[in-house]
Amino acid sequence: MARVMVLHGPNLNLLGTREPEIYGAETLEDVNAALTALGAELGVEVECRQSNDEGELVSAIQAAGKSCDYLIANLAAYTHTSIALMDAIKAVAIPTIEVHISNTHAREEYRHKSYIAPVVEGRIEGLGTHGYLLALRHAARKIAAKGGKR
Amino acid sequence: MARVMVLHGPNLNLLGTREPEIYGAETLEDVNAALTALGAELGVEVECRQSNDEGELVSAIQAAGKSCDYLIANLAAYTHTSIALMDAIKAVAIPTIEVHISNTHAREEYRHKSYIAPVVEGRIEGLGTHGYLLALRHAARKIAAKGGKR
Amino acid sequence: MARVMVLHGPNLNLLGTREPEIYGAETLEDVNAALTALGAELGVEVECRQSNDEGELVSAIQAAGKSCDYLIANLAAYTHTSIALMDAIKAVAIPTIEVHISNTHAREEYRHKSYIAPVVEGRIEGLGTHGYLLALRHAARKIAAKGGKR
Amino acid sequence: MARVMVLHGPNLNLLGTREPEIYGAETLEDVNAALTALGAELGVEVECRQSNDEGELVSAIQAAGKSCDYLIANLAAYTHTSIALMDAIKAVAIPTIEVHISNTHAREEYRHKSYIAPVVEGRIEGLGTHGYLLALRHAARKIAAKGGKR
Amino acid sequence: MARVMVLHGPNLNLLGTREPEIYGAETLEDVNAALTALGAELGVEVECRQSNDEGELVSAIQAAGKSCDYLIANLAAYTHTSIALMDAIKAVAIPTIEVHISNTHAREEYRHKSYIAPVVEGRIEGLGTHGYLLALRHAARKIAAKGGKR
Amino acid sequence: MARVMVLHGPNLNLLGTREPEIYGAETLEDVNAALTALGAELGVEVECRQSNDEGELVSAIQAAGKSCDYLIANLAAYTHTSIALMDAIKAVAIPTIEVHISNTHAREEYRHKSYIAPVVEGRIEGLGTHGYLLALRHAARKIAAKGGKR
Amino acid sequence: MARVMVLHGPNLNLLGTREPEIYGAETLEDVNAALTALGAELGVEVECRQSNDEGELVSAIQAAGKSCDYLIANLAAYTHTSIALMDAIKAVAIPTIEVHISNTHAREEYRHKSYIAPVVEGRIEGLGTHGYLLALRHAARKIAAKGGKR
Amino acid sequence: MARVMVLHGPNLNLLGTREPEIYGAETLEDVNAALTALGAELGVEVECRQSNDEGELVSAIQAAGKSCDYLIANLAAYTHTSIALMDAIKAVAIPTIEVHISNTHAREEYRHKSYIAPVVEGRIEGLGTHGYLLALRHAARKIAAKGGKR
Amino acid sequence: MARVMVLHGPNLNLLGTREPEIYGAETLEDVNAALTALGAELGVEVECRQSNDEGELVSAIQAAGKSCDYLIANLAAYTHTSIALMDAIKAVAIPTIEVHISNTHAREEYRHKSYIAPVVEGRIEGLGTHGYLLALRHAARKIAAKGGKR
Amino acid sequence: MARVMVLHGPNLNLLGTREPEIYGAETLEDVNAALTALGAELGVEVECRQSNDEGELVSAIQAAGKSCDYLIANLAAYTHTSIALMDAIKAVAIPTIEVHISNTHAREEYRHKSYIAPVVEGRIEGLGTHGYLLALRHAARKIAAKGGKR
Amino acid sequence: MARVMVLHGPNLNLLGTREPEIYGAETLEDVNAALTALGAELGVEVECRQSNDEGELVSAIQAAGKSCDYLIANLAAYTHTSIALMDAIKAVAIPTIEVHISNTHAREEYRHKSYIAPVVEGRIEGLGTHGYLLALRHAARKIAAKGGKR
Amino acid sequence: MARVMVLHGPNLNLLGTREPEIYGAETLEDVNAALTALGAELGVEVECRQSNDEGELVSAIQAAGKSCDYLIANLAAYTHTSIALMDAIKAVAIPTIEVHISNTHAREEYRHKSYIAPVVEGRIEGLGTHGYLLALRHAARKIAAKGGKR
Repeated sequence: MARVMVLHGPNLNLLGTREPEIYGAETLEDVNAALTALGAELGVEVECRQSNDEGELVSAIQAAGKSCDYLIANLAAYTHTSIALMDAIKAVAIPTIEVHISNTHAREEYRHKSYIAPVVEGRIEGLGTHGYLLALRHAARKIAAKGGKR
Repeated sequence: MARVMVLHGPNLNLLGTREPEIYGAETLEDVNAALTALGAELGVEVECRQSNDEGELVSAIQAAGKSCDYLIANLAAYTHTSIALMDAIKAVAIPTIEVHISNTHAREEYRHKSYIAPVVEGRIEGLGTHGYLLALRHAARKIAAKGGKR
Repeated sequence: MARVMVLHGPNLNLLGTREPEIYGAETLEDVNAALTALGAELGVEVECRQSNDEGELVSAIQAAGKSCDYLIANLAAYTHTSIALMDAIKAVAIPTIEVHISNTHAREEYRHKSYIAPVVEGRIEGLGTHGYLLALRHAARKIAAKGGKR
Repeated sequence: MARVMVLHGPNLNLLGTREPEIYGAETLEDVNAALTALGAELGVEVECRQSNDEGELVSAIQAAGKSCDYLIANLAAYTHTSIALMDAIKAVAIPTIEVHISNTHAREEYRHKSYIAPVVEGRIEGLGTHGYLLALRHAARKIAAKGGKR
Repeated sequence: MARVMVLHGPNLNLLGTREPEIYGAETLEDVNAALTALGAELGVEVECRQSNDEGELVSAIQAAGKSCDYLIANLAAYTHTSIALMDAIKAVAIPTIEVHISNTHAREEYRHKSYIAPVVEGRIEGLGTHGYLLALRHAARKIAAKGGKR
Repeated sequence: MARVMVLHGPNLNLLGTREPEIYGAETLEDVNAALTALGAELGVEVECRQSNDEGELVSAIQAAGKSCDYLIANLAAYTHTSIALMDAIKAVAIPTIEVHISNTHAREEYRHKSYIAPVVEGRIEGLGTHGYLLALRHAARKIAAKGGKR
Repeated sequence: MARVMVLHGPNLNLLGTREPEIYGAETLEDVNAALTALGAELGVEVECRQSNDEGELVSAIQAAGKSCDYLIANLAAYTHTSIALMDAIKAVAIPTIEVHISNTHAREEYRHKSYIAPVVEGRIEGLGTHGYLLALRHAARKIAAKGGKR
Repeated sequence: MARVMVLHGPNLNLLGTREPEIYGAETLEDVNAALTALGAELGVEVECRQSNDEGELVSAIQAAGKSCDYLIANLAAYTHTSIALMDAIKAVAIPTIEVHISNTHAREEYRHKSYIAPVVEGRIEGLGTHGYLLALRHAARKIAAKGGKR
Repeated sequence: MARVMVLHGPNLNLLGTREPEIYGAETLEDVNAALTALGAELGVEVECRQSNDEGELVSAIQAAGKSCDYLIANLAAYTHTSIALMDAIKAVAIPTIEVHISNTHAREEYRHKSYIAPVVEGRIEGLGTHGYLLALRHAARKIAAKGGKR
Repeated sequence: MARVMVLHGPNLNLLGTREPEIYGAETLEDVNAALTALGAELGVEVECRQSNDEGELVSAIQAAGKSCDYLIANLAAYTHTSIALMDAIKAVAIPTIEVHISNTHAREEYRHKSYIAPVVEGRIEGLGTHGYLLALRHAARKIAAKGGKR
Repeated sequence: MARVMVLHGPNLNLLGTREPEIYGAETLEDVNAALTALGAELGVEVECRQSNDEGELVSAIQAAGKSCDYLIANLAAYTHTSIALMDAIKAVAIPTIEVHISNTHAREEYRHKSYIAPVVEGRIEGLGTHGYLLALRHAARKIAAKGGKR
Repeated sequence: MARVMVLHGPNLNLLGTREPEIYGAETLEDVNAALTALGAELGVEVECRQSNDEGELVSAIQAAGKSCDYLIANLAAYTHTSIALMDAIKAVAIPTIEVHISNTHAREEYRHKSYIAPVVEGRIEGLGTHGYLLALRHAARKIAAKGGKR
């Protein structure tokens, strides 16, 4: 069965408690459960990881490159500062969808810059945690178009 | 029944013939047909318009503010230069999803700036014409959550 | 009798409904009526036009250059992006007063730039719709000083 | 009776002698006399001060905050460099109209920046010394709307 | 017979009356007549259009893409601000020569930027209306080199 | 009893050996001992941590948000580059005092930027390791003003 | 006995009345009294001055250089614009602590720049008027370490 | 007989061998021969020079100022860096047409800047070596309009 | 007899004691005495003033405009920040030589900017206090060339 | 025996598989083996480490400062973003050679900035993995010049 | 036999006498002798040239393109300003190693920019004159890998 | 006898004919004669050179370093672009006075930058050709103070 890795970056473990007016009241567990359920419906296996650590996220992307067909990545604050994560995505050449829960362009100037944007297939932002589900739908559709499995 | 306006900006009438390696081979009619079909399935009426003219697009947004529940807008080149279109969206205060067929952040520097980004609910880019359909799913979901109709 | 053209730019047709905390509750018809009344009092004929379209506004300025003695222009969003409108004012060399209802310098950075500022006689901003009337007083005074009629 | 302070910044004491092609031939005494006369007509007391000294101007604004209903301020060169004057206006929270005799946007780049612009109600520039009179009209109208006196 | 479209942008309809010290005393009709005459001599049909409207110019370029072999474009003020026009030229992939009557690099800083420059074949500027004729000579030569007709 | 976390960032474990002309001869153990002693005197428990790892520091701030009343943070080099640490402080909303041993504004340009500065209560820099003690005094005073304990 | 000068810049005479949500309700007299009292406790004489005038502040710093052991300076708005005050501190080479009541880095961009920062020993900001007292403690400690008196 | 100097800058001696996909396969001798031939046809004497040396080019422009009626200059890389060459053209006040074989605006950013652009009459770029011939036609026409000879 | 005013800006009263490695050991009195002596030799009366206050310096320049033939001005730190002083020089239109004791271009970046530079006749810097004497020689020579007296 | 640490940064563990057209086909093990072999030949012990984690790399540099004579560092993406790594090199003051396999200046703009460049002895880039060997030769030569061992 | 040209730019003829604390005590003759000796050992002929003149250096690179297999270039100050030298290297397409004796990134900002960096194979800097020898080793190795001779 | 070299840069050979409204009517021969005469009066030998070539000027400065006591340099356009000339002055460490006939700060922005400014003793500009004579007076005074001869 095709596999999709969903990667959550720093501070997303606080989801549901941190600034709920921006990020909503769902917890990360809720999000992951919804992703797994939709994955089952669409016929793809979903693996979810979170880390506060840039180095661990680099390694997770490298791992995804070996074992997964698609990457859905919300790298949070590292989106705006990490060339290493961008290099990792480019190095393993896995098709990637960048997701942000909030609309980064409606926030601080320094959140408008995304280092990974030029190396991802597409980006969904500002649609809340629903954005992850839309990304998963897209990944499943693309995987199906290629014959369904890696 | 709830209504969603889909607005296509300058040169999108050439879709399918213009730089197909970036924008794909579907024509704008194909895209609009797919949107109408999905709208029917989701129980929302979809109205599609295209214009090469900034002033006409301003007026179309003003019209959407009076008659529609959601706006899905791919303003193409005007995205990067038009304060008037941003003012129109802000003035009529209609919930809006910005869509781009290609990943604007993987292209020229001047396409990274979106004047409307800070006033839209969310953004989907780089997922081809499928992005319009994902946006419509999101709009339908939000309309349903508010009781289904304006 | 001397003639003054008053030109309103994009989205000003929404005056009174759009962001009333910034632009006030008066409609554009109210403003035009007040201008016409004051014009009558001061002995100048006032012609008011509005358009959402940059090209139409260029043509309107060219027309003013042929038939009017003064131009009072609130070009709204095009103020900040249009070299074509600036070129039109410069080309017909009509004395012009730039008016803004709100104080553009107390708003977003990109509203601080006015392309027409260097080619107008003067500027009034932030004094609400009263600014139009003050501009008309100034125009009438200057016309009178030159002998009252074109 | 309501009171309006008119504050003239550095070098304005030279009015009428300094670069008359930009600033006109009227002296500062002429301007102040016209303001006092119009004030009498409109029923407001006008107090005029001039200083070349930033510190004295800060103190004058603080004084206006205690004894006046409106401030009309042409801070000349300090407009472009003084955060202290902006802080003073903000601190005493007096409604203020910024006036410039010439059109600052038609002159050197460094005159385009006004530190006080974001804290004033409105701005009039380029209309010669007539701008002071228009500002006084506006102040009187606003004072009248609030019941005529502080 | 081969066809060349010559497109004139905003305010060029004023040619001969507007700032003659910069643009010369010829009218647009004179220029078009000279182009038609030279075209006849060189064996190419010349079609001339002018518009003050960005959207109309986008549509005209799309039309040229369908019916003409070469485009000679003086987009005037829109040269410096319009990504939509650049997108149109790129989309229809017609060989284009950018012409300016004056030397844009000897004028204001904001006229040094041309959005269409990177997508045109070449540029002629500062040679007065003679520049159009030189461009036509070049187009005719290139058309001839390709076998003379589309 | 109230608790204060003191967080030391990368390379601060070298204190006393690294560039002593900038950072002084005290070791980190000396500093921590002095903080613990002053804490005892002021009636607050002090917990000190050091890490070279951005991800660990993110997690430590998240932990402080759960178990401590105040955070005193010298994030060293990450001060200037880490949005993730700023996000962590903002997410857990713990009152924070930013401390630097040296005066960052008297050093390299890139040390003048502090990502966390906008989300902290206050900042002390350039007062050597004494700065930590002053910060602790301030935290204790604020905790006491709120009733002494979390 | 050792002497410390505390210098307050423009508009600080309004303390307690100006924007109390930023600067608190204490008056400058309250602050000076608290400083004098703490000075007595720590064995240093405290002299407090305030001026709205940049030139007077330059002269006060020169005077401090002759008669005092330490300078505690809150130069308010002049912090961000005055090279003259920086030159004065550098010229008399008196050890100086820069104090700000609010956190300047959490406010407008132009308040992030401090001209005096590179020439002071250290900086305390955002800790309210308590910051002055912490600065005085530091000055007293340093004076004591040098033998207590100038 | 009227004289036109054609000046070729650094590396143009390699024409035909250097990056032929950008500069074409013609050699500099071919270009010079075509210029001489067209000059004969148009009745102007053409003198061609090439140098890799900025100082020699300065001297050549000074010489042209003494002996020629027009200058056609392709200063290649020095276009973007040399104020000395610009000073030379301005000093001898010879009418000059700047030519580039490739479209400099479609290449690297640093080739967009031309120091000589503001002091030349006009510019032709991107039309291959044909651009030299068009420039010569223009020069001949202008010389003829002035009476044909210096 | 012709008169020359020499104006010294903020902190120059400390000359001889302040940073002698940059400014030398001479006091301001020494400099003024040398200027007076040389003036006597050259037949011009020299008046020297110093102030730490921008407003006083503005007034002094206005006074020089009334009573002197030349101004020699070392405005020290205000050179880099004061538009008011530049306006004063321009307003009274007195020929002015800007003098700096040190080479401002070999010091901090913010000392490279001189607001008065564009309105002075010339500038002498880095030649120590000898620069004042050279400036006086130049002024005397120019005065003599104009007939020796105002 | 003298010791040299060779430090490889993030994603270099993928060497040989990642973008081989840029980085070549050798694996990191191949590189390390070649370094060890050359070290043996030159009489220096070589220790090789790789990490994707900035914090681990900081600690590795601190360790090198204690046990090694030279550091050869290819910090990959962290080169361009990490002040912490630069601080570590500066803090332990070990002579360091910065190596990059590709020519960073021929790639993206953000790879041109190296935070560690100002604190290293020298830099070798673009010479493929051979660059490491040249760096080792240099280190060995310098160690030999100092007497061969730490 | 294979040939390598070593090119030394402006002021390198002063090597050994100029700022020896930066550039060392060896003369250029010493360097050239060491290069020739190493070349003999490695089986490549080494030709060394020095010039203070940008034009001569352009010509030398063109010559190298005809007669040599590799270029080792230390263009000194022209590195940072010359597009002509970069064009020359690119035009003759000779593999080139850029060498700098000092670490340019540890010096003034304007030395960080190298125009030739994007067109060279690799760069060695900061390793003293030893850098030339390492470059020669690299060139010899690459030449050998290609079959040893041009 | 002490020797002073006076070096004139590109286009200064045209002095008297080039833009006389900026540079005056004197020829370079006049200037050199006046310098020689004043040198004789002051007891220093003056050697004058002019070149349009950057490389020749580099060599001339190197020669001055060997045979002269002072350098007076007007490097004209190369002032603003040449790091090589700055390196030459720094390398030979000759005391240098930078002279410009016009006031560079009252001209184009790109003339405000002087690469040699940070390495010269002082600068005189805007005082016409008299500036050379003042510079010579200064050099002679300094030479005399050191004992009169090299």
